[in-house]
Amino acid sequence: MEVSSDRETIDLIYAPIRERLSRVEDRLGNMANVDFPFLSDVLSHVYCSSGKRVRPAIALLASGFHPHDEQKSEIMATAIELLHIATLIHDDTVDESDFRRGRTTISSMFGKDIAVLVGDYVFASSATLVCDIGHIGVIRRFSETIMDLSNGELRERVGIYDPEQTLDDYYSRIFSKTASLFAVSGESAATISGAPDKHISALREYAYELGMAFQIVDDILDFEGTQEEFGKPVGSDLAHGVMTLPTFIALDRHNGTNPVKAYFEDRNNGSLLEEAVDMIRQPEIMAEAYSEASRRCDVARDALQLLPESEGRRSLELLLDYVVRRRR
Amino acid sequence: MEVSSDRETIDLIYAPIRERLSRVEDRLGNMANVDFPFLSDVLSHVYCSSGKRVRPAIALLASGFHPHDEQKSEIMATAIELLHIATLIHDDTVDESDFRRGRTTISSMFGKDIAVLVGDYVFASSATLVCDIGHIGVIRRFSETIMDLSNGELRERVGIYDPEQTLDDYYSRIFSKTASLFAVSGESAATISGAPDKHISALREYAYELGMAFQIVDDILDFEGTQEEFGKPVGSDLAHGVMTLPTFIALDRHNGTNPVKAYFEDRNNGSLLEEAVDMIRQPEIMAEAYSEASRRCDVARDALQLLPESEGRRSLELLLDYVVRRRR
Repeated sequence: MEVSSDRETIDLIYAPIRERLSRVEDRLGNMANVDFPFLSDVLSHVYCSSGKRVRPAIALLASGFHPHDEQKSEIMATAIELLHIATLIHDDTVDESDFRRGRTTISSMFGKDIAVLVGDYVFASSATLVCDIGHIGVIRRFSETIMDLSNGELRERVGIYDPEQTLDDYYSRIFSKTASLFAVSGESAATISGAPDKHISALREYAYELGMAFQIVDDILDFEGTQEEFGKPVGSDLAHGVMTLPTFIALDRHNGTNPVKAYFEDRNNGSLLEEAVDMIRQPEIMAEAYSEASRRCDVARDALQLLPESEGRRSLELLLDYVVRRRR
Repeated sequence: MEVSSDRETIDLIYAPIRERLSRVEDRLGNMANVDFPFLSDVLSHVYCSSGKRVRPAIALLASGFHPHDEQKSEIMATAIELLHIATLIHDDTVDESDFRRGRTTISSMFGKDIAVLVGDYVFASSATLVCDIGHIGVIRRFSETIMDLSNGELRERVGIYDPEQTLDDYYSRIFSKTASLFAVSGESAATISGAPDKHISALREYAYELGMAFQIVDDILDFEGTQEEFGKPVGSDLAHGVMTLPTFIALDRHNGTNPVKAYFEDRNNGSLLEEAVDMIRQPEIMAEAYSEASRRCDVARDALQLLPESEGRRSLELLLDYVVRRRR
């Protein structure tokens, strides 16, 4: 059987929300219409990218179990993608990345300073848009999530090259920097749809675990493939001093000297980095990391059982498989 | 008569809100208590500075014309100062300033990247705190103001070294980057206090004009005094390509060649910069710029006439004099 491309898989999963997602794209496009030509051009560039829109898709699907004013969940989905885009702009600025989703980043085009200010503008746009929902609880959770996201990025940044980091630090960091936004996508959309509390909790749990699995797989992919395939060197997280799940698993199994610590203490020594990466990208290490992602997806799948069977629930289930199997 | 120091003048003006302002300081201090020691230290450093707290003072004074739940206006005042601090953190990052209010900046202590993320966290904290007020209109205006502030900074940044900028561009830019936050301080606090619409408009107008005057005086001070007095070279805005009111006035009066344009076209030529600064810092140019600031203050003073006479109104009036007379 031929494996279909990522894009085809995603399109199949999104089938029940195709039209709604296209209205979200329209809303995003409209957000770029501002009375300042430079900013308008930059916003068009970042809003109309070819991103997978996983977070807005979760929001739309999570809202689909109860009839409600669909404009509101579409506004929520748009605000969530805006917030995600704002974090990408600042992350690319901090990481000095030149490309994102195959396009040049704001910071590589106009410098870090412009990128900082454009990111601020997009953060503020997302927080303003979410006010249209008119539900203070949802608005507050949204702003709290912006705090979580910056807190997570900051923990990662402050903890670089620190060999004393623990697996608990890692999970708490990836919750903040990634899963918090997934969780709020499920939770807020369910709240807006008027779902009962038990459904809101279930959809939050689903989205939280999906977000954790998503980041874990991201971190695994950083050790897989080749530079040609992904456009960045294998083990680039570790090279930049960031310890992720495969590293923690490898160190836990390792009895000899700690090559990660050795590299962190002598960062110009490329052969120490190579030794550490070789230790980590062993098949049994990668498999154990994948099984943690799968375990998270199982918990997410269980959470969905509380909800009635539907095309939308099926899509949420398929999204779990996609997240673990994707190649980038 | 001896001229009292800035701090003494400010303390006199703030007398009617001394206790309330000290509760705002306590709230700010409490916001630094987070479960992440690095962040907690950094937040203590930035929240407990010796800033003049002009914006929260405006909010507290503007709320004082109608009896209301004072906790709410104190929360508003705290959120406004948090938002101001967040903009300072990013501005210092973009400008590569080493000192602010006599203290080292986050970006000079920990680098630009940490400063970007800490600034994001403080922006998000302000947007979260403002939700405690429970008034969606106020929450939305607050987020819109974050958009204004970043838009204004961005316009300034994008327009550097552009000799085609106009006086209208300048006023629109300083509204966004400065007066918008002043205006929302007056307007939101009045709204929270349950003031009638005409009082809300009057307090917004007062705060808007005060904010415009505040920025105009800031821009004048950049051309006055000496490097020893202010810790930065005279004409540093112009040196960085930013045209402000004194420059526009000077160019309007000038018939010969345009030394500003000449400097913008040949930025390594220090004597061209000197020539431009000499042209601008003529007493009659400075006086005309000051009279524009005073004119703004007169409009602000007129707006206050709608409100009942009180100790608080007197303080708002005194603040107008202070803003024009201050030395930094």
